[in-house]
Amino acid sequence: MKVRVYVSLKDGVLDPQGKAVEHALESLGFKDVGEVRVNRVVELELPTNDADQARAQGEAMARALLANEVIENFSVEVE
Amino acid sequence: MKVRVYVSLKDGVLDPQGKAVEHALESLGFKDVGEVRVNRVVELELPTNDADQARAQGEAMARALLANEVIENFSVEVE
Repeated sequence: MKVRVYVSLKDGVLDPQGKAVEHALESLGFKDVGEVRVNRVVELELPTNDADQARAQGEAMARALLANEVIENFSVEVE
Repeated sequence: MKVRVYVSLKDGVLDPQGKAVEHALESLGFKDVGEVRVNRVVELELPTNDADQARAQGEAMARALLANEVIENFSVEVE
């Protein structure tokens, strides 16, 4: 079963990558670009056909490795 | 208007970051994890209220900077 873990920085946490993209876009001529945030989506193929089990595993993986809960939020989507 | 640009590696392109996550998950005790792919989602706040214009700008930004079209696919979602 395919699981997607969306990881994004919490509001108020500076996104240096986003800032860099913002400046690069402006230097390429894109005017008035507002805030840019760069997030991650981790796609996992899990050995189960049970959606609840897959979601629980995705959340456990997010807490153990994929997200830094001090500065990041995550959400899990099961396909 | 908020635009999301999803950037993912094309099928068949090796994902070293995904491989690293895969091995790390296994070392943390998660068994039988299948292929892992790590993708990006760039969130942009664009100075327009026209969805078509926002989509076109998102695509232009993806082609100019956000995606490397040799090895990556991208899709644009307008909120």
